[in-house]
Amino acid sequence: MWSDNPVNSLTVGEAMYRLAADLYPLPRSITGEGFRETIRRIGELIPLAVTETPTGTPVFDWTVPKEWNLRDAWVTDPAGERIIDLRDSTLHVVNYSVPVRRTLSLAELRPHLHSLPDHPDWVPYRTSYYDETWGFCLTHRLRESLREGTYEVCIDSSLEPGSLTYAECVLPGDDPREVLLSCHSCHPALANDNLSGITLAVALARALSAREHRRWTYRFLFIPGTIGAITWLARNPALARRVQHGLVLACVGDRGHLTYKRSRRGNAPIDRTVAHVLRHAGAPYELMDFIPYGYDERQYCSPGFDLPVGCFMRTPNGQYREYHTSADDLDFITPAHLGDSFARALDVVQLLEGDRVYVNTHPCCEPQLGTRGLYRTTGGTDVPGYELALLWVLNQSDGAHSLLDVAERATLPFGVVRRAADDLLRAGLLREGASA
Amino acid sequence: MWSDNPVNSLTVGEAMYRLAADLYPLPRSITGEGFRETIRRIGELIPLAVTETPTGTPVFDWTVPKEWNLRDAWVTDPAGERIIDLRDSTLHVVNYSVPVRRTLSLAELRPHLHSLPDHPDWVPYRTSYYDETWGFCLTHRLRESLREGTYEVCIDSSLEPGSLTYAECVLPGDDPREVLLSCHSCHPALANDNLSGITLAVALARALSAREHRRWTYRFLFIPGTIGAITWLARNPALARRVQHGLVLACVGDRGHLTYKRSRRGNAPIDRTVAHVLRHAGAPYELMDFIPYGYDERQYCSPGFDLPVGCFMRTPNGQYREYHTSADDLDFITPAHLGDSFARALDVVQLLEGDRVYVNTHPCCEPQLGTRGLYRTTGGTDVPGYELALLWVLNQSDGAHSLLDVAERATLPFGVVRRAADDLLRAGLLREGASA
Amino acid sequence: MWSDNPVNSLTVGEAMYRLAADLYPLPRSITGEGFRETIRRIGELIPLAVTETPTGTPVFDWTVPKEWNLRDAWVTDPAGERIIDLRDSTLHVVNYSVPVRRTLSLAELRPHLHSLPDHPDWVPYRTSYYDETWGFCLTHRLRESLREGTYEVCIDSSLEPGSLTYAECVLPGDDPREVLLSCHSCHPALANDNLSGITLAVALARALSAREHRRWTYRFLFIPGTIGAITWLARNPALARRVQHGLVLACVGDRGHLTYKRSRRGNAPIDRTVAHVLRHAGAPYELMDFIPYGYDERQYCSPGFDLPVGCFMRTPNGQYREYHTSADDLDFITPAHLGDSFARALDVVQLLEGDRVYVNTHPCCEPQLGTRGLYRTTGGTDVPGYELALLWVLNQSDGAHSLLDVAERATLPFGVVRRAADDLLRAGLLREGASA
Repeated sequence: MWSDNPVNSLTVGEAMYRLAADLYPLPRSITGEGFRETIRRIGELIPLAVTETPTGTPVFDWTVPKEWNLRDAWVTDPAGERIIDLRDSTLHVVNYSVPVRRTLSLAELRPHLHSLPDHPDWVPYRTSYYDETWGFCLTHRLRESLREGTYEVCIDSSLEPGSLTYAECVLPGDDPREVLLSCHSCHPALANDNLSGITLAVALARALSAREHRRWTYRFLFIPGTIGAITWLARNPALARRVQHGLVLACVGDRGHLTYKRSRRGNAPIDRTVAHVLRHAGAPYELMDFIPYGYDERQYCSPGFDLPVGCFMRTPNGQYREYHTSADDLDFITPAHLGDSFARALDVVQLLEGDRVYVNTHPCCEPQLGTRGLYRTTGGTDVPGYELALLWVLNQSDGAHSLLDVAERATLPFGVVRRAADDLLRAGLLREGASA
Repeated sequence: MWSDNPVNSLTVGEAMYRLAADLYPLPRSITGEGFRETIRRIGELIPLAVTETPTGTPVFDWTVPKEWNLRDAWVTDPAGERIIDLRDSTLHVVNYSVPVRRTLSLAELRPHLHSLPDHPDWVPYRTSYYDETWGFCLTHRLRESLREGTYEVCIDSSLEPGSLTYAECVLPGDDPREVLLSCHSCHPALANDNLSGITLAVALARALSAREHRRWTYRFLFIPGTIGAITWLARNPALARRVQHGLVLACVGDRGHLTYKRSRRGNAPIDRTVAHVLRHAGAPYELMDFIPYGYDERQYCSPGFDLPVGCFMRTPNGQYREYHTSADDLDFITPAHLGDSFARALDVVQLLEGDRVYVNTHPCCEPQLGTRGLYRTTGGTDVPGYELALLWVLNQSDGAHSLLDVAERATLPFGVVRRAADDLLRAGLLREGASA
Repeated sequence: MWSDNPVNSLTVGEAMYRLAADLYPLPRSITGEGFRETIRRIGELIPLAVTETPTGTPVFDWTVPKEWNLRDAWVTDPAGERIIDLRDSTLHVVNYSVPVRRTLSLAELRPHLHSLPDHPDWVPYRTSYYDETWGFCLTHRLRESLREGTYEVCIDSSLEPGSLTYAECVLPGDDPREVLLSCHSCHPALANDNLSGITLAVALARALSAREHRRWTYRFLFIPGTIGAITWLARNPALARRVQHGLVLACVGDRGHLTYKRSRRGNAPIDRTVAHVLRHAGAPYELMDFIPYGYDERQYCSPGFDLPVGCFMRTPNGQYREYHTSADDLDFITPAHLGDSFARALDVVQLLEGDRVYVNTHPCCEPQLGTRGLYRTTGGTDVPGYELALLWVLNQSDGAHSLLDVAERATLPFGVVRRAADDLLRAGLLREGASA
C-alpha cells in the first residue's frame, strides 16, 4: 500500500492519501475498537508500542473514561424507512452516545438531532464525552423534511469499563533527548482533521526509520485528543522532560498554505526552525503566536510542562467552513498538499538533525580558503551564496552561535550554511562546540 | 452641588463641570488666599489635610517664595475710563506682580502690557514668580486702540513672608504602598489647565472613598505647580518611596482625545495599565513617550526620584491654541469630556486594584472546566472571549505573569480576564502568587 | 599642495582630490615600490611610521608573500604596433604577474587577456596574488579587434623575497585607548576604491593633529588590503585590544550618498555614533548590517578580535558599475563629495571626543535654571531645542546614560546636547561620571 520516496514528495503524498482513505470509514472515538483498529493498520506500516490505560485511572485532574463501542445505529421514519444509518457515515451518531432503542414522536426526537442550518447538505461532527446522552447528526435538509409521526431509533453502543488506547513509535538516536511528534487519532470520518496528521506522522516515521543514523530520538504519538495527551503526560513525566523539540501534526492535507503556531515559549528552537523552513520554502505561509486553544499543544504547553511543542498545520482548526463536518472528507484533502506538508516537515527534521554549534579553529583574521580548495584564487566580484556562507560560518562560529543562528543572520537557507560548515569541518577550520 | 454616580460618567462629568465653574473666578496663584479658598471649597467635597510651608524654607535647590495676595487691580485711560479691571478676569494681572500705584504715559506703560497679536480677542496668562516686576495682560485689540495720554495703574497686591499651601486627600488601603494622583491647582481662570484636573481628582477621590475596600492607599495632591511638587517631595521623601503608581492629572476637559504620556521608566506598570485601558476603550487615543517638559511629572520623574508617574490628559499642554489664554474658559471644556476622562481614569484604578499574580493549582495539563461548571460540556466550535480568558489565565498563571500580562498576551480586555480569574479562584484552580 | 580648513569642507575636499590625482598613476600593489612611493608622498602630509615585514613571515593562517615590482609591460600586435602599454594605465597588467617575454599566437595569448564584454570601453582590474601566472587587462573593444598572427608580450616584473610595507600615523590623546582608522592603500589606478579613502584618512589626521587636545589616541593605518590588516593584527595583538572605536574608510569620493556598514557587534558605540551623525546630517544615507564580506573589517571583525570597527563609505564595493574598472577614475570622484565625507567623518570624531557620562549634582527635582542664567525667567510657551536639551541632560544624567544616549532619547543633535552639558557643567549642575 505504501511507497516511500522522500525525494519525490508527491509519491509520498499519494501513499499518505491512500492511508487516509483506508482509515476513513473506521468508527473512531477516544476509546474503543475503532481506535484500536486504526492503530493496528498504522502498525502495519511502522513499529508501534500500544498502551492500554484502564477506565477509572486518575490522570492529573481527569479520569480515564469508560470505553465506548458502537456496533450499529439507525433511525426509521413513520413510514418505516431507514433515514439515518451508521453505515453511511460514522458522523451520524453523536460520539459517546449511550445505547438507546425507542419509539418516539418527532417532538421527542428533535432535541436529539444535530444539523447545520447554514450548510444544509453537510452532517456535523458532535461529541458528548462527559455528559451521558445520545443523539444523531444529519443534514439540515433531511431534518427539515421530517414529518410528524412515530420514529424508531437504535443506537447499539456500549459505554463500560475498559481502557484507553494509545500507540507510540520510538526511533532511537545518538541523543536520548527526544523530538515529539503527536497527532490526535480519535476523530471519525474527518479527512483533514485529523487523518491527514496521522498520515504525516507515518510518512515521517518511515522516512526517519530508513536512515542509518539519527541525532535525536524521535517519538511519534498516536493518541486520542486531549484525554490521550493528558494520559501520556501523566504516565510519562520523565519522558516529557526529555522533549527538546516537538510538533503537533494536524490539518495538513487541505489546499491552504502552511501555518505554524508557535509554542508557548514563542522563541524555542522548534519555533525558530519551522519559521526558517517556511521562510525559505518559496510559498506563502503563516506564523501564529501560541494561544491556549487548539490541539494537544494545549496540554504539552500547560505551565507545569511548558514543552517546546508547536503546531504544524495547513489551515488551522475552525478556520475552514468544512471543519468538523462531513465536508472534511477525502475530496477536501489532496495527495499534492499532503506531500508538500511532508516535504516541509522533513526540512524541519533535517534542520533539527543538522543544527550544531561550531568553533572556528582559526578565529584571528580569516583563514586562507584558496589554499584549501574552498575558494576562487583569482580576485573577482561575484559572491555566490556558498562563498558567503563560508565566511559567515567562520565569522560567527565563536561557540555562541548555532548554524541556525548563522543562517538567520546571513539570511541564507540552512542547507547552504550546513554545506559550508561540512566543507569547513573537512578542512579542519571548525571543531564542534558545546552542545546546543 | 455634587452628585456621584460612577456608573453614569456623564452625571459625574456634570458635577465636575459645576465644580470647575465654581472655582473659575478665584484669584489663584502658587501661594495666597486664592489658592487657600480653592482648597477650602474642594475640602467641602472630600477630606483634605492642608499643609503650610513658610516662606524661606529651603526645598532642594529652591526656596519657598514670598506669599502673594491680590486685592484689586485696574488701569484707567486718559479719559479716566477703567479699561482693565481685575474683576473682569484674574488673568488681567501678571501673576506675582509687585504692588504699584502710578500715573504714567503710554510709552511708560507699554513695556508692562502683554497681549497676543495672533489672537487679538484673547487675554494671555503670564507669570513672573522669580523676577519682581508688574504687568497687565489684555486683548491685543484693546492694546492697539490705546491713545497717547496719561494712564493710571493700580495693583493692590502684597508680596510678603507667608507660606505655601498644599492639600492632600489620603484614602488608606490594605497595602500601605501608594497610588499618587497629583494636580496643579495654582492656575487662575484657566478651565482646562487645570480646573479640569482638579475636578477629576475630586471625582476619583469621591468614587474611591465610597468603596468598602481598597487594595492600595491613594494620595491625592492639590498643589501649586513646580514649587508645590518640589515642596511636597522635599518634605516627604519616605512617602515618595512608597509610590507604586502615579498620575499627574491635567487638561482633561477639552474636546480632544485622551493622551497618556509615559513615565520616565517608560514601561512601568502604570504605563502598561493606562495603555491597556486606552487600547480597549474603543476611542482614538495617543501614547507619548516621556519628555522632561510638561507638568509635575518633571519633578516626580527627576533622576533622584524616578517615580512611576505618567501624565493623564486629553490635549497636552501647548498643543491647543487656547492654552494659557482667556480662551481656555468654561466653554472650552464639556461635562461629557470631563465624564469620559473620569470613566477611563476609573478603569485605570480598577485595573491597578485588580491586577494580581496567580498560580495555577493544577499546572500539569488543563484541569476539567466542565465538571466545575465553568465550561460547555458538549463540543462545539465557538470560543467566546470569556472561555478563552479561562484558558489563558490557567496557561499563564505560573507565578511569573500578572493578569495584566495575561490580558496583554491574550489581547483581551482586562475586565474579561479578571472575571475569568475570579471564577477560577472560586473553583480552587488558582491561588494567589507572590505580590506583584 | 594641501590646504586645511576644517570649517570649509569643500576646500578640504579639493585638497583631498589633488592628493588622489597625485597618487593615481603610481603602480601600487600589496607589496613593492609603488606602495612605498604612495606612503612616501602621504608622509609629506602627515607623520608616518613605516613598518616592513619580511617575505615568509607567518601571520596567523597566512604568510607574507614575495615582493612584487613592475618596471615595464607591453604587447605588440602582428604589425609590431604596441597595442597595450603599462604607461597608459597600471591596470593593464594583472597584479602580481610573473615576468614574461614571449612571442605567441593569438590563440596562445587569449587565455591571458581579461576584458569586460558588458563595458567594452573599460579596462578591468585583476589580481593573482596566490597563483603564479601572468596576464593583461584591456578594453573588450580592443580584444575583439585582434587579428590572427604573432604577438609579442613583455612583463618586466620581479616576484622575489622582500617585504610587505605598511604605515601608521599615531596621534596621542589623554586616553591611551585608541580610535582605529584604516584604509587599504594597495589598489592601483582606482580613484574611489581606494584613493578616496586614503585622502579621507590624511584629511582627518591633519585636522586632528591640529588640535591642542585629543581625548582618544588616534591610529591611522595605510595598509595593503587583507594581508596588510592580517599582518598588522598579527604583529600588534596588544594594540588591537586597545581599540575602542574604529572605521574602515573606503569609497568615499563618488556621487552617491553616505553608507555606514555596522561592525559585527551591531550596536557598538561607533555604530550608534555614525548612525546618529548620519541621521542628523540632513541628507539621504543608508545603514547596513555587518556582513563578513567587504574590506578589512573582515579581519578586524573576525571572531578572535571582534573589534568595534565599522565601514564608512559612500557607494559600497560592488554596488557601482565602475567598481574595479578603469572607469573608477578621477572623474568618478568629486571634491565636493570627498569634502562631504570628510565633514561627516569629522562629526563622528567630534562625537567620540565629546561623549561622556555625567551625574546630575541636584538629582532630586529640577534645579533652578533661571537663577543660574540658564533659562528664561518669565513664563512663556516656546521651548527651543537648547532648553529642552538642558532638561534632558539633567533628567538622564544618573550615571547610566551618556550624552549620546541622551541625544538619541531626546531626538536632538549631539551638538545641542553637548552644548547644554557644557553650560550645566559650568553651572556646577553636573559632574563627570564613571568613564563610558
